Amino acid sequence: MNAVTPLKHDFKVADLSLADWGRKEIDIAEHEMPGLMSIRRKYAKEAPLKGVRVTGSLHMTIQTAVLIETLKDVGADVRWASCNIFSTQDHAAAAIAATGTPVFAWKGETLEEYWDCTLDALSFPDGKGGFRGPQLVVDDGGDVTLLIHKGYELEKGDESWVNSASGSHEEQVIKNLLKRVAKERPGFWTTVVKDWKGVSEETTTGVHRLYQLAEAGKLLVPAINVNDSVTKSKFDNLYGCRESLADGLKRAMDVMLAGKVAVVCGYGDVGKGSAHSLRAYGARVVVTEIDPICALQAAMEGFEVKTVEDTLGTADIYVTTTGNKDIITLEHMKAMKDQAIVCNIGHFDNEIQVDALYNSGAVKTNIKPQVDKFTFDNGNSIFLLAEGRLVNLGCATGHPSFVMSNSFANQTLAQIDLWAKKDSYEAKVYILPKHLDEEVARLHLEKIGVKLTRLTKDQADYLGVPVEGPYKPEHYRY
Amino acid sequence: MNAVTPLKHDFKVADLSLADWGRKEIDIAEHEMPGLMSIRRKYAKEAPLKGVRVTGSLHMTIQTAVLIETLKDVGADVRWASCNIFSTQDHAAAAIAATGTPVFAWKGETLEEYWDCTLDALSFPDGKGGFRGPQLVVDDGGDVTLLIHKGYELEKGDESWVNSASGSHEEQVIKNLLKRVAKERPGFWTTVVKDWKGVSEETTTGVHRLYQLAEAGKLLVPAINVNDSVTKSKFDNLYGCRESLADGLKRAMDVMLAGKVAVVCGYGDVGKGSAHSLRAYGARVVVTEIDPICALQAAMEGFEVKTVEDTLGTADIYVTTTGNKDIITLEHMKAMKDQAIVCNIGHFDNEIQVDALYNSGAVKTNIKPQVDKFTFDNGNSIFLLAEGRLVNLGCATGHPSFVMSNSFANQTLAQIDLWAKKDSYEAKVYILPKHLDEEVARLHLEKIGVKLTRLTKDQADYLGVPVEGPYKPEHYRY
Amino acid sequence: MNAVTPLKHDFKVADLSLADWGRKEIDIAEHEMPGLMSIRRKYAKEAPLKGVRVTGSLHMTIQTAVLIETLKDVGADVRWASCNIFSTQDHAAAAIAATGTPVFAWKGETLEEYWDCTLDALSFPDGKGGFRGPQLVVDDGGDVTLLIHKGYELEKGDESWVNSASGSHEEQVIKNLLKRVAKERPGFWTTVVKDWKGVSEETTTGVHRLYQLAEAGKLLVPAINVNDSVTKSKFDNLYGCRESLADGLKRAMDVMLAGKVAVVCGYGDVGKGSAHSLRAYGARVVVTEIDPICALQAAMEGFEVKTVEDTLGTADIYVTTTGNKDIITLEHMKAMKDQAIVCNIGHFDNEIQVDALYNSGAVKTNIKPQVDKFTFDNGNSIFLLAEGRLVNLGCATGHPSFVMSNSFANQTLAQIDLWAKKDSYEAKVYILPKHLDEEVARLHLEKIGVKLTRLTKDQADYLGVPVEGPYKPEHYRY
Amino acid sequence: MNAVTPLKHDFKVADLSLADWGRKEIDIAEHEMPGLMSIRRKYAKEAPLKGVRVTGSLHMTIQTAVLIETLKDVGADVRWASCNIFSTQDHAAAAIAATGTPVFAWKGETLEEYWDCTLDALSFPDGKGGFRGPQLVVDDGGDVTLLIHKGYELEKGDESWVNSASGSHEEQVIKNLLKRVAKERPGFWTTVVKDWKGVSEETTTGVHRLYQLAEAGKLLVPAINVNDSVTKSKFDNLYGCRESLADGLKRAMDVMLAGKVAVVCGYGDVGKGSAHSLRAYGARVVVTEIDPICALQAAMEGFEVKTVEDTLGTADIYVTTTGNKDIITLEHMKAMKDQAIVCNIGHFDNEIQVDALYNSGAVKTNIKPQVDKFTFDNGNSIFLLAEGRLVNLGCATGHPSFVMSNSFANQTLAQIDLWAKKDSYEAKVYILPKHLDEEVARLHLEKIGVKLTRLTKDQADYLGVPVEGPYKPEHYRY
Repeated sequence: MNAVTPLKHDFKVADLSLADWGRKEIDIAEHEMPGLMSIRRKYAKEAPLKGVRVTGSLHMTIQTAVLIETLKDVGADVRWASCNIFSTQDHAAAAIAATGTPVFAWKGETLEEYWDCTLDALSFPDGKGGFRGPQLVVDDGGDVTLLIHKGYELEKGDESWVNSASGSHEEQVIKNLLKRVAKERPGFWTTVVKDWKGVSEETTTGVHRLYQLAEAGKLLVPAINVNDSVTKSKFDNLYGCRESLADGLKRAMDVMLAGKVAVVCGYGDVGKGSAHSLRAYGARVVVTEIDPICALQAAMEGFEVKTVEDTLGTADIYVTTTGNKDIITLEHMKAMKDQAIVCNIGHFDNEIQVDALYNSGAVKTNIKPQVDKFTFDNGNSIFLLAEGRLVNLGCATGHPSFVMSNSFANQTLAQIDLWAKKDSYEAKVYILPKHLDEEVARLHLEKIGVKLTRLTKDQADYLGVPVEGPYKPEHYRY
Repeated sequence: MNAVTPLKHDFKVADLSLADWGRKEIDIAEHEMPGLMSIRRKYAKEAPLKGVRVTGSLHMTIQTAVLIETLKDVGADVRWASCNIFSTQDHAAAAIAATGTPVFAWKGETLEEYWDCTLDALSFPDGKGGFRGPQLVVDDGGDVTLLIHKGYELEKGDESWVNSASGSHEEQVIKNLLKRVAKERPGFWTTVVKDWKGVSEETTTGVHRLYQLAEAGKLLVPAINVNDSVTKSKFDNLYGCRESLADGLKRAMDVMLAGKVAVVCGYGDVGKGSAHSLRAYGARVVVTEIDPICALQAAMEGFEVKTVEDTLGTADIYVTTTGNKDIITLEHMKAMKDQAIVCNIGHFDNEIQVDALYNSGAVKTNIKPQVDKFTFDNGNSIFLLAEGRLVNLGCATGHPSFVMSNSFANQTLAQIDLWAKKDSYEAKVYILPKHLDEEVARLHLEKIGVKLTRLTKDQADYLGVPVEGPYKPEHYRY
Repeated sequence: MNAVTPLKHDFKVADLSLADWGRKEIDIAEHEMPGLMSIRRKYAKEAPLKGVRVTGSLHMTIQTAVLIETLKDVGADVRWASCNIFSTQDHAAAAIAATGTPVFAWKGETLEEYWDCTLDALSFPDGKGGFRGPQLVVDDGGDVTLLIHKGYELEKGDESWVNSASGSHEEQVIKNLLKRVAKERPGFWTTVVKDWKGVSEETTTGVHRLYQLAEAGKLLVPAINVNDSVTKSKFDNLYGCRESLADGLKRAMDVMLAGKVAVVCGYGDVGKGSAHSLRAYGARVVVTEIDPICALQAAMEGFEVKTVEDTLGTADIYVTTTGNKDIITLEHMKAMKDQAIVCNIGHFDNEIQVDALYNSGAVKTNIKPQVDKFTFDNGNSIFLLAEGRLVNLGCATGHPSFVMSNSFANQTLAQIDLWAKKDSYEAKVYILPKHLDEEVARLHLEKIGVKLTRLTKDQADYLGVPVEGPYKPEHYRY
Repeated sequence: MNAVTPLKHDFKVADLSLADWGRKEIDIAEHEMPGLMSIRRKYAKEAPLKGVRVTGSLHMTIQTAVLIETLKDVGADVRWASCNIFSTQDHAAAAIAATGTPVFAWKGETLEEYWDCTLDALSFPDGKGGFRGPQLVVDDGGDVTLLIHKGYELEKGDESWVNSASGSHEEQVIKNLLKRVAKERPGFWTTVVKDWKGVSEETTTGVHRLYQLAEAGKLLVPAINVNDSVTKSKFDNLYGCRESLADGLKRAMDVMLAGKVAVVCGYGDVGKGSAHSLRAYGARVVVTEIDPICALQAAMEGFEVKTVEDTLGTADIYVTTTGNKDIITLEHMKAMKDQAIVCNIGHFDNEIQVDALYNSGAVKTNIKPQVDKFTFDNGNSIFLLAEGRLVNLGCATGHPSFVMSNSFANQTLAQIDLWAKKDSYEAKVYILPKHLDEEVARLHLEKIGVKLTRLTKDQADYLGVPVEGPYKPEHYRY
C-alpha cells in the first residue's frame, strides 16, 4: 500500500464485511460505557468540537469505536489509526469504516504499513488534492506526536536525526517515511503544525515523552496528560490489566495459572493489577522492582521481591510491566525453564529483547497467530506472545469496555478542554482538573449500582471542602 | 451424515488440515500433563490394556487428545466422540484423526449428529462388515452408558421408553436413533453388552446416574466413580472452573467483571471455584443454595446468600453450577436487568430453561458463535452463552491441561483397574483406592516444584499410618 | 491442692469475683451461638438428658459456658474441667462456678493440677462420701477417655503401663495419679465404667485415638466422632483457626504479619485456615506437607510447598497444625532466623520439641504470660508461644462464639443421641447422621441473614433426594 | 493532678514497676523497626538534634518508645505526652520514664488530665523555676500545635475563642486550661513561640488543620506534612489498619467476623485497609463514600457501596474511617440491629455522635475497659468500643512496629530536616522530598528479604531518571 498517493477509498481495513458483527459489539459496548454515553447526551446539542479535525492514534478496538463515535457526536471530523500493529479488532475497524469515518488499521500490520496508516490518519484532504493536518490529536504512546515533531524538525532543516544510525528497525521505518514525505509533500509538516492546537495522551510512556519535550522547550502544542487522571491510571492501568492479562495468557496458551511461578517485572499500577490477577488464580507471583517504595508495597502485599536472575530456571511465566527497556534480556530467555512463557503488558516490545531473540539463532515455530515458540541450542524453548507487544491487545481484546469508558471519558473531556482553551493554554503539559476527574467517576456509578453518601453543609465546612467537591488535595494518592 | 452405514473413512472431523496445529498444541499440553506422561512411561512396556477396545465419550479437546494417546500407549484400541455438541476443539480432533484413531467430533454438531457420533464411537468394525462394542468405556456425563443401557433394554423387549413422550428434543433424538439401530443392526446391543467389562465416569451427574442404576439393580457392568477421587472433584471441578469460567465469559463477552453483581447458583466444588474466581476479579458475588451446609460455607467465605428471585433486576451475570434443572427459569430471564448474561458451567443445558426461552417469542440475535441475544417484549435483552451448555467448553477451551492431567490420570488408572479386576468386580460403583488418589497427586508435584516432607517411622507410628501412605481415613474431606 | 479428698467447695477456679464479668460475656456469646440457643428452645421441655451425669473436658471458655448451660437446660448434671492448662478463661469458669455447677479449671495450671482437675470433673459425689463416674463424657483431645481406659486397665490387673518408663513429664503425672487413685479409691474405675454409656469427641487427635481403641477392640463405650461432622471439621478447624491464629499471634507478639515469611506445617483444615489467614495479612506463606494431595491443594492455592529445613534462616513465623509430633525439632529452632516466632495451633505441645528446648541449655526469658524468649549459644533467640500448646487458646480466647456454636451444637446433639441409643449402640465410633449435620448448619443461617433456596418436588425427584434433605451422598467432601 | 505546679517527679505514668516489661517489649520492637535503628546508626555520631528541645504528642506506645529513644540518640532533649486518652501502653510509658525521659501519659486519662499532660510535655524547665517551650514539635492530630496557636492568640489579646460557647466538653477543657495558664504563667506562649522552629505532623486530620492555618496566614512555624509521605499514608494508614482493626475488634469483642455484615464508612487509605481486612476474614463489607472516585474504587474491588441508612437493621459492625464528623449519628445507632458493634479507626471520637449517645438516655453497661453496651428504649443494644476513639489503640496496641518504623523514620527525618533548614524554611507546609521517602522504604527492605533490581545507566537514561532515584514524578500515586 502506498499511503501518500491521493486516497480513493478513504479507509484501509482488513475486511469490510465484518462491519455488521462490529456494530453488534459496539452496541453491547455502549451499554458498558456509561461515561462516554453520558458525554454524548450532555454535549450533543452544544457540539463543542464542531468541525474540529481530530486525528486519533489509539488501538482500533470496539471500545475505541465508541470513543470515535462520541467524538463525532460532539462535532469532530475524525481520522483514525491504531497505535499498535496487533491491537486492531478488524470488526471494529470495519464498523467504523462502514459509517464513512476514515480509519486505517488492521490486525497484523507490518511496521511500514503501521506508519503509513499513522500518516494517513493525520492527512485530512484539503479538497484541493492536498492535505491538511489535525487540529487536535488523541494519542496513545505518542506516535503521532513524535511523527509531527520529527517531521517539523526535518522541515526546519535539522536532518541530523533522519540521517543518523537507527537503533531498531522501527526507527528506520519512521526515518524512511519522513524522507519520503519530504519529497512527496514538501512543507507538509509546517502546514500541520500551523493548525495544531493540542494533544491528549493516554499512556505513561507517551506522557513521559511529553514532559521531556516540554522540559527541553521543544513541545509544539499544549498537551493534556490523561494518563494521570485518577480515573485513568488507577482504573485502566490497574483494574484493566487485572482483567486483561489473564485473558491474553489464556487465549494464547490455555495455560493453567494455579501452581505456576509467575514473575511480574515492575509493581506500578500495571504491575499491581497483573500481580494480583495472577495470584488470584493460584499462581505464586514474584515481583521485580527498582523503586524501593513500590518494592515495599509488593512485600506488604505478600509478594516475594527478587531479581529476574534469581528466578531463572524456576519461573514459568514472565510479564513485563515497567515502561522501561531490556527488562527481559536474551540471556534471561536462554536461561529460563523449558517452555517458559514471556509476554509484555507494559509498553513497547523493547521491554523484552525481541530483536536480539530474533537474531539469536533460536528456532522459531509459530503455534498460532501471536504465539511463537523459540527453541535454543540447549533444547529449551520459550513461548513469546504477541511478538513482545501488549499481550492483552495482541492475544485478547484489550481492556473491557467499562474501564475504557473511564479512560476515554477523560480523553473526550481533554479534547473538549484543549479546544475550549486553545487560546489560553501554553505549550505545556496539563492535567485535567480534579472536578473533571471526579465527574468521570460519577458518570460510572449508577451503572454498577453505587449509591453515594452526600456531605451535609456542616460536614463540608468541617472538612473545608465544597459539598459538591472536589474533595481531595492535589497530592492525594487514592 | 449417516452413522450406521459401513465406515469408509473411519473418522468424522471438521477439517483435517488443522491436524498440524493440533499436534503443536498437543505437544505443549503434554508438557503440562505430567500425570499422564508419567503413566505412559510407567506402563508403556507392560501395556495393561493391550488390545482392549475402549470407547471414549468426552469433550474432544487438546487435553483429551493426550488422554487418548496415553490410552493407546498402554495398549488400547480407542474410538472417541465428544460428550457435548460445542466442546470439540477441531484442531485436536483433526490431530487425532490424522494418527488413524477413529474420532467423531466437531464443534457445533446438531443433536442428531451428536448421537450418531456417539454410536460411531462404540461401533468397532468386526472385520466382517459388522460391529462389536467396546470392552471398556470412558464416559463423561454418562451418554454412552445411557445409550447401551437403553439399547439393551429395548432389545430385551421393553419398548416402553422409546415409545413414550419425550420431555425434550434431545430425548426424542436418542429414541429415534435406538429405533433406527434396532432396524439396521438387530441384536447389536446384546453383542455390545456381552463384551462390556466396565465404565469409568468423570462427572457428578454421570456418577449420580450410575448410583441410581446400581440401586435399581440395573447397572450392567462395574463402574468406577472417577469424579469422587479427591484429585478429580477437588481439582478439576474447583480449580478447573476457577480458571475456565472467566475464560469463557471473557472470550464470549469481553465483559468487565469488576463492579458487576454475579449470581452463582450452587456452592458445590464447581460453584466454589466459580464464586471465588468472579470475586477475585472484583465482582460482587451472590450465591444461591438449597443445602444449608454449603450455604453456611458460602456465608463464611463472605458471600451473600439469597434466592435467584431476590437478585432479579440488580444482577448482571448468572452462572449455574448445580447439576440440577430449572435453576434459571424463563420467568427469571424475563425479569432480569437489561443485558444480563446467563450461562451454565454445571451440567446439562437444562440448568437454564433454554427450551422455554426458545419458545418464548423472544427475538434471538446471534452476535457470534455461542453468543446469542434474546430480546423480550418489554425491550429488555439477555445474552445466553453456548446455548446453555458448558460455557467454559463452548466459549473457551475448557479446563487447562494441568488440572485435566489429574482427572485423566484418574481415568486412565480406573481403566487399567477395571480391566485388571474384570473378573472380580461386581456390577457396582467403585471409587479408586486412596493410594491411587495420592499417587495421582504425587505425579503432579515435581512439575510445579513442590517438595514433600517425609514422615519418619516414629511419626508414622504415632499417627498409625504407613510411612508411604495412604495418610487419611476414607471419610476425610480435604 | 489435693483433688481426691472430699470436696467441700465443689469447684476450683482462679477468682470467683470475675463471675459478673463472665456472665456479661456469656450473655453476649449467647447472641452469637444460635445453634445452642435453638437447641435449648427445642429440647427444654423434653429434657432428654434429664438427670444424666455428664463430665466435660473441654477448654473452659465463654463459649463452653454456653455449652455447659445448654447441657444443663436439656437436663444434664454436669461437671467440667478444661482440656488444656492454658485455655481456661477465668471469668468464664467463675461465672459457671457461681451458678453452682462444679468446674475445675484455671488459666495456667500445672500438669499435676490439670490431671487432678480432670479427676475432679469425673468424680460425682455419690451422696455417701464416695464418687460415681459420669454416664456420658464430652471430650476434647481424649484425656477423660484415656484416664478411664487406663484406670480401668490398671484395676483389671494390667500394671505394665503405669510402671513403664515415661516418654514425657505429663505421662508420668498421669501414672502417678492413677497409682494414687488406686490407693485412695480402690475399685473406682470399675464403678465408673459400669455406668458409662458413651463419649462424644471433638478433635482430630481424640477421634484418631478412638478409632485406634476400637480397632484394637479395647473401646469401652460407644463414641461419636463429632470432629468429622462437616459443621465441625470444615467450620471450627478451618474458619475458627482463620480467625483465632492471628488473634493469638497479635495478642502475644503485636507483630506485623505483612511482609513476613510464615511457615505453616500441615495443610489439613487447620492448616488451610491458618495459611489463608496469614496470607490475607500480607505474609508470604510456605506450607509443609507429607500428603501429596494436601500438598497439591496448597500449590493450587498459590502457596510454596517446601520442607521446614528449606526455610530455616529465612522464615519469621512457624505454626504447626499437623496432629503429629516432632514437627519443629530442637535442631530446627537452633537454626532459625533470630527472633523467629514458634507456635502450635494443631494438637499437643509435642508438635514442637518443647521438652528438648527446655533441656537444651537455651536461656529462657519470660516476656509476659505465654510468651517466652529462648536464647541459644549462638546469640540467636526464638519466641515460643503458650509453651507450645494451642496458641489461639493460650494467647487469645480461642475460636469465636459463632463457629463454636456449630461444634457445640454437634456435641449436644451427639450427647442426646448417645443417651437415646445407649441400648442399641455398640462400642464403636459413630458419625452423626447427615440430616443432623445439615440441621446444625440450618440453625445458624438466620442469624447471618442467609436465605436458602427450596427445591421443588420436581427438582428433588430429578436429583433423587428428599425435598427436605439430606442432599449429599456420604462421601461428599464439601 | 495539677499540671502547672513545678514538677518534682518529672513524669506521670500509671505504674513505674511496669518498666522492665516495657523494656523487654521495646527490645523486641527495635528488631522490627529497621528504619529507626538505621537512622540511629547513621546519625548517632553527628547528632543533628544535639540539645534541641523536642515535644512529642503521639500515642505513648512501645513503638513510640523506640521513636523517642531514636530522637534522643540523635541528640534531642525530649518530653512526651500521648495524643489520645486511651492509647498509652502503660509499660511503654514506664520504661521511658525509667530512663529519665519526662513522659506524661497513662491509659484512661480524663480529658482534663490529657490536656494537662500535653502542657507538661511542652513545659521544659528553664532551670530558674519557670518553663521554656519546645524548639521542635512531633505532633499527631495537631493538639500541641493547636494549644500553642490558641495560647499565643490569647496572649496577643484575642479572647474571642476562649470565651465562646464550646461545641464539646473537650473544647471547654482546652479553654479552661488556657485561662489557667494565662493566670499562672503570663507570657508563657509568647516565650514558646519565640523559640519554636517547626512541627512535623503525622495524621490526615492534623495535616488538614495545618494547611488551613497556612492558607489563613496564621501558621506560626514551618511544618512538615509527614502524613503524605508515601511511606506513611500508603503504609501506616493502609497496611497498619489492615492489621490493627481486626486486632482491636477481637480483643474487645472476640467476635466472629466471618459471615458478618460490616460497614466501613470511608474508602481512603484507612478505609481501604479496614475493608480488605474484614473481607479477608469472611465478612461481607459494605462501603459508604462521598467521593465518587473512591466509591468507584470500592466498587471495582467488589465492595457494595451504599449509605449508612441503607444498612441499618442488617449490618453487624460499623467502622468509621473518614476524618469527618457525624458519620454515625445517634439516629443511626438507635436503628441498628440488636448488638451491633460501633467503632472508629479514623480520627476523633466525633466520627460517631458519642456525646449524643451519652445524653440519649440509653442505659450504659460497661463490659470491660473500652467496651460499653448501650441499651435503647426499644430493647436493642449496641456496643461502643473505646468510647468512639481509635479502636486499634484503645482496644489493642495500635499498629505493629514494622509499619510504624516507616512512619517514625519519616518523623525523625522530618525533625532533622526542620532543624537543618530552620533558617530557610518559611511558615508553610512542606512535604519530605521524594528521595527521603524512597530512603525510608529502602531502610526497610533488607529486614524482610526484599532484593531490589538495579537500573543500568542505559535504562536510567531511557527513563530520564538518575540510577539512584528518585524514580517517579511528584504526581505519581503509587
